[in-house]
Amino acid sequence: RAGTVVAAVGIEKEVALDEIPLTLLKEGEAHWNKPDPNNMRQRFETLIMSAQKSICKAIEDVDGNKFRQDAWKRPGGGGGISCVLSNGNVWEKAGVNVSVVYGTMPREAYRAATGESASSGGASASGDGRIPFFACGISSVMHPWNPFAPTMHFNYRYFETDAPSDAPDAPRAWWFGGGTDITPSYLFEEDMKHFHGVQKAACDKIDPAFYPRFKQQCDDYFLIKHRGERRGCGGIFYDDMNQHDKDLLFNLAQECSGAVVPAYVPLVEKRKDTPYTEEQKEWQQIRRGRYVEFNLVYDRGTTFGLKTGGRIESILMSLPLTARWEYNHEPAAGTPEADLLDACRNPRNWV
Amino acid sequence: RAGTVVAAVGIEKEVALDEIPLTLLKEGEAHWNKPDPNNMRQRFETLIMSAQKSICKAIEDVDGNKFRQDAWKRPGGGGGISCVLSNGNVWEKAGVNVSVVYGTMPREAYRAATGESASSGGASASGDGRIPFFACGISSVMHPWNPFAPTMHFNYRYFETDAPSDAPDAPRAWWFGGGTDITPSYLFEEDMKHFHGVQKAACDKIDPAFYPRFKQQCDDYFLIKHRGERRGCGGIFYDDMNQHDKDLLFNLAQECSGAVVPAYVPLVEKRKDTPYTEEQKEWQQIRRGRYVEFNLVYDRGTTFGLKTGGRIESILMSLPLTARWEYNHEPAAGTPEADLLDACRNPRNWV
Repeated sequence: RAGTVVAAVGIEKEVALDEIPLTLLKEGEAHWNKPDPNNMRQRFETLIMSAQKSICKAIEDVDGNKFRQDAWKRPGGGGGISCVLSNGNVWEKAGVNVSVVYGTMPREAYRAATGESASSGGASASGDGRIPFFACGISSVMHPWNPFAPTMHFNYRYFETDAPSDAPDAPRAWWFGGGTDITPSYLFEEDMKHFHGVQKAACDKIDPAFYPRFKQQCDDYFLIKHRGERRGCGGIFYDDMNQHDKDLLFNLAQECSGAVVPAYVPLVEKRKDTPYTEEQKEWQQIRRGRYVEFNLVYDRGTTFGLKTGGRIESILMSLPLTARWEYNHEPAAGTPEADLLDACRNPRNWV
Repeated sequence: RAGTVVAAVGIEKEVALDEIPLTLLKEGEAHWNKPDPNNMRQRFETLIMSAQKSICKAIEDVDGNKFRQDAWKRPGGGGGISCVLSNGNVWEKAGVNVSVVYGTMPREAYRAATGESASSGGASASGDGRIPFFACGISSVMHPWNPFAPTMHFNYRYFETDAPSDAPDAPRAWWFGGGTDITPSYLFEEDMKHFHGVQKAACDKIDPAFYPRFKQQCDDYFLIKHRGERRGCGGIFYDDMNQHDKDLLFNLAQECSGAVVPAYVPLVEKRKDTPYTEEQKEWQQIRRGRYVEFNLVYDRGTTFGLKTGGRIESILMSLPLTARWEYNHEPAAGTPEADLLDACRNPRNWV
């Protein structure tokens, strides 16, 4: 299983694997060595590996092409599996990553990941040392060719900090985060109602208070501040969730990741063969440019990954195959393009 | 001259102008109202406006198309002129901006602009208030269609801070910054020798110690940290320059901005009609993706502009018309693409 050392920046170089591993947890932590129903690392890893398999299968069934799998580990523990479908029949680029990270992060990255402000105290205020952490998650972005078929992103993750080395008594923190959101280039009200409806149904199974809150948080999170517009039409987003018990939050991640395929795949099946003009493709490309702007400038997962020396190709897999920036582009009033832009500027309630 | 209010995020909305103004300085500060040979605001504005005109003229002569001009002012002072040539015969996108900003910046933006660390003291450590500043500069990026013709960027700027409102006795700071750098997709040694040679000659007129230092700083600055490669093949870069007298630093900006056309235009004239394959165009597009990554993640001017509420279309004019991200792309050993990548990973000395 030993592989070749591949490029990485920062903490520890990853080692490419020749086979797909059954676990990315450290020796002795895996469920068959030390099965423990209270061990959230084990449970969450099992959840995301299973979600990766079933979601990739559903996408392959529509696209007709197979995902390429890359796996890697880090000598000190952790690793990842990237499934990427490039240049498919339906998707120009679809990726589903799982990763397990045992790391230490600089204060700055901790803040980028948690949204904690420099002055608010918290784990990062407990000393000058780096913050050791465990993180485990699944993330995915799918960009179809057809401008009428939407891009979709989801991410579900579990995070624990250990005490900093210079402050062994500092409190440990854990939290869950996640979300699923949709980025159309053209708006179909029925599609948005379907997508948001499935998100709501998944959340409602756990707590009916969740969807309205997560929908608002999603609209807030995906704001491209410098443009005053969101990258798309939202969905659900939650982060720093530790105010419920772990079982409930685990079930939430399970329901929501299980809702990805029924929420998204029918929309692509419906739109993938719609004829389109060159101008419509260009508008999609301009929206892809906004997607790049959001991910590189604001997205916590991306900026966190770039700063902590994650596997670059997996982190930037979220970027579209192609994107476009036109100077001073503004769609004419009353056009479908202006309607989409309005929905990005003034988020609507779909359900 | 009154115009329509256009969108902006942050401090103060800009107002589009119907005519190109003769000055962007505040009423009473302009040279015909209060001519003062020691007033660096006046002198630097005159320099950059004149450079904008002559450089645009030289580009138009090669391209055959004209730049579109947009001008705007802010009610509290300052403004800008953007010249953009889109969809030309030779360049897919070429832009030359001048701007004058009277603003106040949050501590964080001040640090992004100056590179000052959170703990190093300096102007931003003198209180909790925002930092008032004056900034004046020219910046430009030119992306040609032909993959054998390089992209070029330059930027020359003058910056002053005022005392923060809650610390009127804090010292004021001023500095000059600038640079010109080249981003080829394919390497021609003679082109790089020419480009760097012209930069060196311009610097040598002021101080023979400058070029080697600025060349190194350029290689350091344009590093895409998460990839361990530079966005291109360097040139010169300097920032925070206040350890010389203002006349010398003004002359440096004048020499270097005057060297832009002789350093760059001959390379484009030589390569603009070279036939190329679809694969070569795709490689250019992948390099354009790296350009986007650098600008959105690391470039001080871009991140500063996005945070301080600059005119977004002018700031992001630097992005290419189109870009591409392919998962795990690595050129085969021994190819011209691998040669370029090697030069981005291991900067060479060209002169």
